[in-house]
Amino acid sequence: MAGYNLKGIEAAPLKDDVDIVIPTIRSLDFLEQWRPFLQHYHLIIVQDGDPSIKIKVPEGYDYELYNRNDINRILGPRANCISYKDGGCRCFGFMVSKKKYIYTIDDDCFVAKDPSGKEINVIAQHIRNLETPSTPHYFNTLYDPFREGTDFVRGYPFSLREEGVQTAISHGLWLNIPDYDAPTQLVKPRERNTRYVDAVMTIPKGVLYPMCGMNLAFNRELVGPAMYFGLMGEGQPISRYDDMWAGWAAKVVCDQLGFGVKTGLPYLWHSKASNPFVNLKKEHKGLHWQEDMVPFFQNLCLSKESDTAAKCYMEISKMTKEKLTKVDPYFEKLADAMVTWIEAWEELNPPVKNEAFSDGKEVKAK
Amino acid sequence: MAGYNLKGIEAAPLKDDVDIVIPTIRSLDFLEQWRPFLQHYHLIIVQDGDPSIKIKVPEGYDYELYNRNDINRILGPRANCISYKDGGCRCFGFMVSKKKYIYTIDDDCFVAKDPSGKEINVIAQHIRNLETPSTPHYFNTLYDPFREGTDFVRGYPFSLREEGVQTAISHGLWLNIPDYDAPTQLVKPRERNTRYVDAVMTIPKGVLYPMCGMNLAFNRELVGPAMYFGLMGEGQPISRYDDMWAGWAAKVVCDQLGFGVKTGLPYLWHSKASNPFVNLKKEHKGLHWQEDMVPFFQNLCLSKESDTAAKCYMEISKMTKEKLTKVDPYFEKLADAMVTWIEAWEELNPPVKNEAFSDGKEVKAK
Repeated sequence: MAGYNLKGIEAAPLKDDVDIVIPTIRSLDFLEQWRPFLQHYHLIIVQDGDPSIKIKVPEGYDYELYNRNDINRILGPRANCISYKDGGCRCFGFMVSKKKYIYTIDDDCFVAKDPSGKEINVIAQHIRNLETPSTPHYFNTLYDPFREGTDFVRGYPFSLREEGVQTAISHGLWLNIPDYDAPTQLVKPRERNTRYVDAVMTIPKGVLYPMCGMNLAFNRELVGPAMYFGLMGEGQPISRYDDMWAGWAAKVVCDQLGFGVKTGLPYLWHSKASNPFVNLKKEHKGLHWQEDMVPFFQNLCLSKESDTAAKCYMEISKMTKEKLTKVDPYFEKLADAMVTWIEAWEELNPPVKNEAFSDGKEVKAK
Repeated sequence: MAGYNLKGIEAAPLKDDVDIVIPTIRSLDFLEQWRPFLQHYHLIIVQDGDPSIKIKVPEGYDYELYNRNDINRILGPRANCISYKDGGCRCFGFMVSKKKYIYTIDDDCFVAKDPSGKEINVIAQHIRNLETPSTPHYFNTLYDPFREGTDFVRGYPFSLREEGVQTAISHGLWLNIPDYDAPTQLVKPRERNTRYVDAVMTIPKGVLYPMCGMNLAFNRELVGPAMYFGLMGEGQPISRYDDMWAGWAAKVVCDQLGFGVKTGLPYLWHSKASNPFVNLKKEHKGLHWQEDMVPFFQNLCLSKESDTAAKCYMEISKMTKEKLTKVDPYFEKLADAMVTWIEAWEELNPPVKNEAFSDGKEVKAK
């Protein structure tokens, strides 16, 4: 481990600095199994679908719960930027949180075991990922140099070592049911992920990846405004691209602001494959549009003036309208919702004093 | 595995298409342990140091051996581009080979075991890496999608899947003694790599990495001319950067020509840490210069006309002279040696007929 000390990595590290955001339409019985690891944290539950349904939360968990009526009441006309009947509604929870870190998890995910048979503490690993630097400028062949038992290898410039960059996103993986799209699910209905790859790595600067929202942690203070899960689900032509959209945009924002993105550990156990035929219907436009969305984000070049996540996101919205509306008119609606999202974010999260009174000087993100 | 069929991955795959290149100054007893995996392959042994010393090769191996006198005889005045008293002399072996693939290994490396206790067939894994495509344009979070039991995840554009790009380099790793530089060796004399990370991944386009020559395979036909291990050792101000130089240049060439570079599996067992004080003396200029060398390669932009590895390499030589000579006059000498290397390569490996008679049309690398 390259000269890095981590405090508070015990059973429930930084419990006052983390909110757990869970989107759900059903009972939250899955939390029973998570007690040893999640019970000390505060939950923000975003109830999707019919608000009259009563969601059962296991005893002993500290939580706040928002249904569609709450979202409409809190955001007023801006509530239309939050997806309905789609897991993307979870981003409402990111917005109302006041914590530094968010961990978000799907309700069909369970505790996984490492190869030694030990139950994996997902939060502890995500915190470790977020509290140690990233290395986006040059690849370390022994993976995360800040991990115990390893370091930077020969040929790694010293100027790129100690400092690293601050980590904004920690993308965890899944054992059992892999996160495949509908066509791959149909072709390989029985494929299961049994391979535990014991690594965490930085996704290099300038490189995009498909971010899955099933097991995801991030630093809200650094990139919260970029973690918008788009306009999906009921009333929209597309679903199941909520996390992808957020991942592409947030990666571009991290690259712009000099923050790092890690992927790898921790694993959780994904129990249930969603129906591939239903998914195909939800995804089919996305499968087509991703051929344009990915190059759009790959070629996105933000201006120097975009020096906060919110400003970056406003610029991405503008370019979405400019460049993607020709793919489908939907993107104009999405671009408008992105602006609404930022307005709502800033209303609920007003700039902190030292920014407001910074005497004309820009507060640089890094 | 994303629709990819591999034939011939048995104990000694493609044995007529692979040469094993070993630089050495001592006995090759280490080959005894490698018999089950390497004995069916042809060896090219490059003897470094005093040519009057007799190198002992274990019985039953098929080999050719070159000492300094042979190199001088074969290359004449151009022999000065081959390092003396430095492992970088191995690149002479790349030049005299006529095979498609090269595997090069150090003589202090032994067979490692995977976590199940099974001995690792390094060649079989390298061949698998080289014979399946790479994915440099977008990151797959479940790592190599061409491996059994895995695939491209949701959000991976289909246009980037099946085709992938041809793999040119397979960089394997090391259990036990990690490949650290002298300062890290001194600070952590007892650190051992015990972590078996069960993954192979593509190093994305535009991203550099520190390539170690200890356990390395590559496609000679695609990138052979870029695999020059520089001018190091006796008479030069620098050592232990031979593989780094080759790795940086070859990665830039792969990015330019549209070839892929993989790192990860297979592991071998690195038995012996070299003396950190000796290494510090050999490395100290490199430790300083890498702060310029890495940005130099990161910012290198080759012209469209450079559409073969040799042409790319000539352009890199020109830019080395232009940009790095101000760091130290040594780089002018290195740049000249790079030209000599390409001249020698082309003399020993004349262009094949269909290129020579291509009727004025360029034979594109991809």
